[in-house]
Amino acid sequence: MSLQLRNRIYRELHSLVLIDPHTHINPLAPASATLADILGYHYYTELAHSAGMPKSEIEEEGLDPKEKVRRLIENLGPIQNTVQYSWLVEMAQAFFGFEGEHITPNNWETLYDAALEKMSGDDWASQVLSQSNLEAVFLTNDFDDPLEGFDTSVYIPCLRTDDLVFRLAEQSVRDRLTTATGVEVCDVATLRRAVETLFTHFTQKNVRACAISLPPDFTPARVSDGRAHMAIEAFGLQGVNYSESHHRALAQFVFWTLAENCQQHGLPFDLMIGVNRSVYAAGVYQGQDLYDSRISLIQYRELFNAFPEVTFPISVLASVTNQELASYAWIFPNVVTNGHWWYSNTPTFIEHDAAARLEAVPSTKQIGYYSDMYKLEFALPKFNMYKRILAKILAEKYVIDRNWGEERAVELGRRVLRRNVDDIFMSGS
Amino acid sequence: MSLQLRNRIYRELHSLVLIDPHTHINPLAPASATLADILGYHYYTELAHSAGMPKSEIEEEGLDPKEKVRRLIENLGPIQNTVQYSWLVEMAQAFFGFEGEHITPNNWETLYDAALEKMSGDDWASQVLSQSNLEAVFLTNDFDDPLEGFDTSVYIPCLRTDDLVFRLAEQSVRDRLTTATGVEVCDVATLRRAVETLFTHFTQKNVRACAISLPPDFTPARVSDGRAHMAIEAFGLQGVNYSESHHRALAQFVFWTLAENCQQHGLPFDLMIGVNRSVYAAGVYQGQDLYDSRISLIQYRELFNAFPEVTFPISVLASVTNQELASYAWIFPNVVTNGHWWYSNTPTFIEHDAAARLEAVPSTKQIGYYSDMYKLEFALPKFNMYKRILAKILAEKYVIDRNWGEERAVELGRRVLRRNVDDIFMSGS
Amino acid sequence: MSLQLRNRIYRELHSLVLIDPHTHINPLAPASATLADILGYHYYTELAHSAGMPKSEIEEEGLDPKEKVRRLIENLGPIQNTVQYSWLVEMAQAFFGFEGEHITPNNWETLYDAALEKMSGDDWASQVLSQSNLEAVFLTNDFDDPLEGFDTSVYIPCLRTDDLVFRLAEQSVRDRLTTATGVEVCDVATLRRAVETLFTHFTQKNVRACAISLPPDFTPARVSDGRAHMAIEAFGLQGVNYSESHHRALAQFVFWTLAENCQQHGLPFDLMIGVNRSVYAAGVYQGQDLYDSRISLIQYRELFNAFPEVTFPISVLASVTNQELASYAWIFPNVVTNGHWWYSNTPTFIEHDAAARLEAVPSTKQIGYYSDMYKLEFALPKFNMYKRILAKILAEKYVIDRNWGEERAVELGRRVLRRNVDDIFMSGS
Repeated sequence: MSLQLRNRIYRELHSLVLIDPHTHINPLAPASATLADILGYHYYTELAHSAGMPKSEIEEEGLDPKEKVRRLIENLGPIQNTVQYSWLVEMAQAFFGFEGEHITPNNWETLYDAALEKMSGDDWASQVLSQSNLEAVFLTNDFDDPLEGFDTSVYIPCLRTDDLVFRLAEQSVRDRLTTATGVEVCDVATLRRAVETLFTHFTQKNVRACAISLPPDFTPARVSDGRAHMAIEAFGLQGVNYSESHHRALAQFVFWTLAENCQQHGLPFDLMIGVNRSVYAAGVYQGQDLYDSRISLIQYRELFNAFPEVTFPISVLASVTNQELASYAWIFPNVVTNGHWWYSNTPTFIEHDAAARLEAVPSTKQIGYYSDMYKLEFALPKFNMYKRILAKILAEKYVIDRNWGEERAVELGRRVLRRNVDDIFMSGS
Repeated sequence: MSLQLRNRIYRELHSLVLIDPHTHINPLAPASATLADILGYHYYTELAHSAGMPKSEIEEEGLDPKEKVRRLIENLGPIQNTVQYSWLVEMAQAFFGFEGEHITPNNWETLYDAALEKMSGDDWASQVLSQSNLEAVFLTNDFDDPLEGFDTSVYIPCLRTDDLVFRLAEQSVRDRLTTATGVEVCDVATLRRAVETLFTHFTQKNVRACAISLPPDFTPARVSDGRAHMAIEAFGLQGVNYSESHHRALAQFVFWTLAENCQQHGLPFDLMIGVNRSVYAAGVYQGQDLYDSRISLIQYRELFNAFPEVTFPISVLASVTNQELASYAWIFPNVVTNGHWWYSNTPTFIEHDAAARLEAVPSTKQIGYYSDMYKLEFALPKFNMYKRILAKILAEKYVIDRNWGEERAVELGRRVLRRNVDDIFMSGS
Repeated sequence: MSLQLRNRIYRELHSLVLIDPHTHINPLAPASATLADILGYHYYTELAHSAGMPKSEIEEEGLDPKEKVRRLIENLGPIQNTVQYSWLVEMAQAFFGFEGEHITPNNWETLYDAALEKMSGDDWASQVLSQSNLEAVFLTNDFDDPLEGFDTSVYIPCLRTDDLVFRLAEQSVRDRLTTATGVEVCDVATLRRAVETLFTHFTQKNVRACAISLPPDFTPARVSDGRAHMAIEAFGLQGVNYSESHHRALAQFVFWTLAENCQQHGLPFDLMIGVNRSVYAAGVYQGQDLYDSRISLIQYRELFNAFPEVTFPISVLASVTNQELASYAWIFPNVVTNGHWWYSNTPTFIEHDAAARLEAVPSTKQIGYYSDMYKLEFALPKFNMYKRILAKILAEKYVIDRNWGEERAVELGRRVLRRNVDDIFMSGS
């Protein structure tokens, strides 16, 4: 029977110890301190706001964590249908012994206190990692992160580069770059030296990937040194008001320089493609970004051809781009499919997108999932969601439709959930 | 068992009394007079024509209704696979005691006569409403509709504004506007006054929504009074031949003025996004429109930000836009998902699109379905189609995949089928 | 039970004798000579290359077929998940008595020898046709193909026209055209005469379709004789370096001329829309093409309106275009849906796309499937894949969801698998 089959496969996948290849964890405060850290996740604040809760009630300055939780719980009724709400209930059940189906104005306080007690334990983060079968998580580090004070074999550095590519004309960003590298950027040579310095620093700290998120209209291209020099001069003179043409040339130049450094240092370059920032500028914190789904990976053609030795794990924001992603990973040796990002991280899209990848992309070139979490507690419900869907696909489309043995199907699941993370990110030295 | 579960959920949803939030019903002749009114629906004429029936046979002037039905029935063989054909059979069975699987040249006449007898009854429209569990239906009213002669609590006015936005340069449209409002539009002030007069008139007649269909390339934007004035002057002088630039500026100005009036009068503004008119100009009546699916809701960014107090129930023509719709409704408090429109109103797209919305958009911001019908008989098979799909999603993706109780799943169905129509359209006064 | 139902429907569909309406078979060497012909199919070479196998190992000059197979088999581990790999195993089992689940370095040689023995039989091609229930296959013939030496009732000519439309500025193509037609193209009149000559020749050889693949940015349009003349003069003077504007005008003119000839000769015009050639120029042979999915059939509006008497069977490369295809086929009498092409020829996309067509496009206007194969052995696993998916759709969406009788469902399957091929391609004389 199909449901029992799904459950058997799920249990096998569930026993795996995992590495989470993309999160926003702060390694100095990886787990939640109160339930407010969990309910403050933008999925809850933005959905509560979307359903009518004023931003001012959520983001009131100096708001006490417990009061914040109370207010949010009172506004979660309209989002109980969402998969994000199901993550919340699953965390409450798995970590804090919650037994209800809903967290309500009537029962939230008991839960809050139970969570507080657990979270106050000295080794709460370790407990969460252990209970979640997590061995390590990738971070998202600003280029000027000192990367000190934590175990980089558990909290694995990843160099995030959005600021370098898109905000280098801002004085504050250049100041941070100078502080981090000792290099003042005034021309192409100093820019190259500064970037190289960052890569060297990160490499010494066990960095395992370079990463960036990109707007829909970005097209990587090789830019000549002369053109880049003009752009650097222009922002020196004009600051952030320099022309769109200079802005684009500089972004392309820095991006290309990053790819060159990835090649030199043997680092995968995670591309997260398709987000428009601040579309709803009056939205809550981190709840303002949306997208234009009219993008194509053809925009990355020059890049993929120019860097055959760099692996590009790629996430796309919209499910309509997933077929292109599967096709490009099927053809280009250096293109790898990477997880289910943000607005595509809901069951209907995951099911459709993962199924399409599994049947057409080499199994070794698919990173099944990452949590994208800000606090450790979220890995458990998010990975469980993915594993349930993966088990469903393996049961229905492989064991039933294609007559595979169960163990063969489970092995494919193990590969996309764990082995490929090892092979793609961890195998260098 | 999953099928029994689906059926139980379907039966619960089926017992709801509904309001249909978008139709093209003529309140003075809401139900069909003969089977020709049903078979004359563009879905049948355009599909029969697509399968080879000449337009001239369908649209022959002075054609007797019975002969029209005979001709169409003879040409329905090739479309018996379509879901539209299944609506026809379901209507014949539910309303007219038809017992066959197919309506054929051999059995149509009996059906025609049975239907004629039923339809000739004095209270046929009321019978249809009652048998369809319908309490009220929204209309699609031209801006100059007198809104007289019917019960506006059953046939609820909705101000349709395509002509105002896209055809105001035509003399006939301006004449109608002058007749309806007593205002001759010669500048920005008179244009504002005319629109305001329409809203006041409709508000007095229990209007519950303003609505418009929009081509793929339309991008709402605030246009200055000065620019709008130039456009108004230009069409005064040059008529419909005025420039594309004036045309666009005027359309944007009128559209923005409508949104301002929606805000002032507390009306939701239904946006039906993505249709290209007359793509197949030689097609049958209402069977000429198609679309370019390369649109994005990013085009509506300025609008959604500018009118936080206006609710925008949004329909998209192509399923590839559905994820954007779900994401924008998840982030913007004033964006609501609205039904499954036209070319996306077939089971495969409904199932995929509805499932994606249900798991990511607050439950209070989803209007499940509207019939878009021209004659009352169509609500029954169309809503039944939707309810069967909704029951399937709730059974498989909620009760089975996410372990929900059946009653909780049914309650979610009730919300999107009925409660949200009340809350979004009917709660103002 | 749904699985048994699927199997019953599958068996019925499986008993049909088929005509494959699009292949790349060489009629003078239709079947494989060794397993290297099968493993040399670009799906295997490009996927093995994508998973890490160097192109040089695959395309080494003078490579012995057996050694080529050995190398490829050693590199297939990473692609055992793909549906393309399942075709390979199914062929090995069906044609060569292979009994394993995987073809490995340990068992491939036995298989190679068994295949070689079978393939060496005099009537191997006939055996494959017979075992595959294939009555005839369409070819893909260059415009200058002599069409001699084979039975055109089994190997049915199809005039492929990419070179004429997109490469006529190249001297080698014009030379071929002159040789084939006796006409030297120097103006619009000679160009028309040359094309007409090709059509006459092909018509005498039982041609049943004209076909072309088109890049995403192509938009057919009527071009005046004067404009075309300028382009012809320009390429005479400037060769392939003539301007993009001339290139586009000439491509549009030739394309339009082909459509006129299709009308005159009663030939369907297969359009395969959406491919970008040589995106990964360093890829293996035939493994370099990808696509930009941002296309719309609105680009074909003028064409569909201008040639109401020409049937256009249309394939789209990306599944995101499938809804437009279904909608255009639902509205335009001359637009027909045609198979599942290339990157959309994998189960998840086939299931979604076929289901959407079946419920909205007249049954007579859907060509279910073609194999696109280069060697006859591939029809069997590819059609079986499609038939399994079609049986699943018919079982779940028609018999279960819509309460159809099984025989009615099977009949719909028969129509899209066979009858429409007869009616659309074979009925002219």
